[in-house]
Amino acid sequence: MQTTGKVWLVGVGPGDPELATMKAVRALREADVWLVDDLVPEAMLCYANPGTQIISVGKRGGRCSVSQSSIHEQALEHAQAGRCVARVKGGDPLLFGRGGEEAEFLRGHGIEVEIVNGISSGMAAAQALGIALTHRQHCHGVTFVTAHTRDDGDPDWAALVGSRTTLVIYMGMSRLAAIRDALLQAGMRSEMPVAVVMHASRGDEKRWVGSLATLTEAADAGLASPAVILVGEVVDIPNPASLTDQHAFGDLAAGLPSKQPEHDLQRERQRAHQEDHITEGTHPA
Amino acid sequence: MQTTGKVWLVGVGPGDPELATMKAVRALREADVWLVDDLVPEAMLCYANPGTQIISVGKRGGRCSVSQSSIHEQALEHAQAGRCVARVKGGDPLLFGRGGEEAEFLRGHGIEVEIVNGISSGMAAAQALGIALTHRQHCHGVTFVTAHTRDDGDPDWAALVGSRTTLVIYMGMSRLAAIRDALLQAGMRSEMPVAVVMHASRGDEKRWVGSLATLTEAADAGLASPAVILVGEVVDIPNPASLTDQHAFGDLAAGLPSKQPEHDLQRERQRAHQEDHITEGTHPA
Repeated sequence: MQTTGKVWLVGVGPGDPELATMKAVRALREADVWLVDDLVPEAMLCYANPGTQIISVGKRGGRCSVSQSSIHEQALEHAQAGRCVARVKGGDPLLFGRGGEEAEFLRGHGIEVEIVNGISSGMAAAQALGIALTHRQHCHGVTFVTAHTRDDGDPDWAALVGSRTTLVIYMGMSRLAAIRDALLQAGMRSEMPVAVVMHASRGDEKRWVGSLATLTEAADAGLASPAVILVGEVVDIPNPASLTDQHAFGDLAAGLPSKQPEHDLQRERQRAHQEDHITEGTHPA
Repeated sequence: MQTTGKVWLVGVGPGDPELATMKAVRALREADVWLVDDLVPEAMLCYANPGTQIISVGKRGGRCSVSQSSIHEQALEHAQAGRCVARVKGGDPLLFGRGGEEAEFLRGHGIEVEIVNGISSGMAAAQALGIALTHRQHCHGVTFVTAHTRDDGDPDWAALVGSRTTLVIYMGMSRLAAIRDALLQAGMRSEMPVAVVMHASRGDEKRWVGSLATLTEAADAGLASPAVILVGEVVDIPNPASLTDQHAFGDLAAGLPSKQPEHDLQRERQRAHQEDHITEGTHPA
């Protein structure tokens, strides 16, 4: 009689393998098979066992290569075949990750699902900028919001401005002008400090610091999806040039092989993009 | 000539030692001295080296036992004496942690500060409840807000309700009735699903699920500071009794000694509370 497997829904954080939690690393090491999002960097393969099967199920910036239902089915099939599955997601699976939907589907089929929190890229962006998201002099809190529209409409920008919380905007890089206009129209001052951070915590991290008025210049500076946009008084950075550029990965990760020979995530991603042409209107994972 | 030390401003997450990041664990192990907040559980001592000096600088629920300026001075003194200091904080140092102020002070004195993100208790609460904070059917985002008032006034509850984001309220357990009234007055329906989670991810985690109308019952059920309050459509949990109660710490942490004989954080905290009577109106760290 075959035992049913288990699915770990694992957030591995913003990119630096050292920002994965101890629990995430345990889940990755226990897994027989990984189902990996596009936003998970190659470097995370340092935690794969040599025998682990790595499958790319990436979706990127709204362009869907592998449908959400196909991801559901693949996770289910592997678990039903008795395998331990790691559904590997960037950031935290419960924040803009559709993790809730995946867990719901699998639990509905009697599969054990364990969710592991991860550091979201918005938090890592604050670290990269050296700012507190909720400095008590400036605000009572912070709002993480998606600017992604599709079928879900726009967030209520006027209410968000009215809340006077720091705004951390995900999936907004293709709509910089629209976001700027909406915030200005809601009464936000054009000098409001704004920053954009791409690949926070990774070796190729990019930062841009400006104001609401100059927001579209972030794109000119080469920052693109998946980057997060931070808006608010706390973003005021007296001397952006002083930001350190050290993002060397730590000893723990460096001590491990950075890539197993049999794991080629890039090749696996190309294959997945070619084979799976099903598309649907979904959030990027 | 003496070399100046360094300060790690380390978020160790919500309580389960396995939810510390690999980088946090490296920082804790590198440190000669820890300056530890009250919200950091004893279990985290599994990451202390036998020779590490453990100093409690806890503040809890607005009652300040060690002043913020004393914490600044202690961190500075140890670093200037050439030691590697871990300033150990629960959750993430950049979210309601006054981490920004500590980093600013130390950098102003020429001390190298490195900040390590951690999992915030609000994220761990979502995990404990098995809910996604930003389920796309219900909202565009999530707001982390403090209900703590002191000199800083109340958040704009009406604007927060208007934003229709999920609300995760920190430091609100002593003001449940006031929060309920403010949200009702702002037009939120009394049946809005609400949950409270205390000690998320820890062995003694407590959860309460109800509605805005019944919010004060969370206190009757024994939930108190430091607990987080989650408000929004995403909190709707069809069968709260089905929530799993497994919070066994994982193999990685369990393999380590849970407590070094020379480290008695409880005793150290009592001593600190007795010795330091300086108080000031501050956020709890």
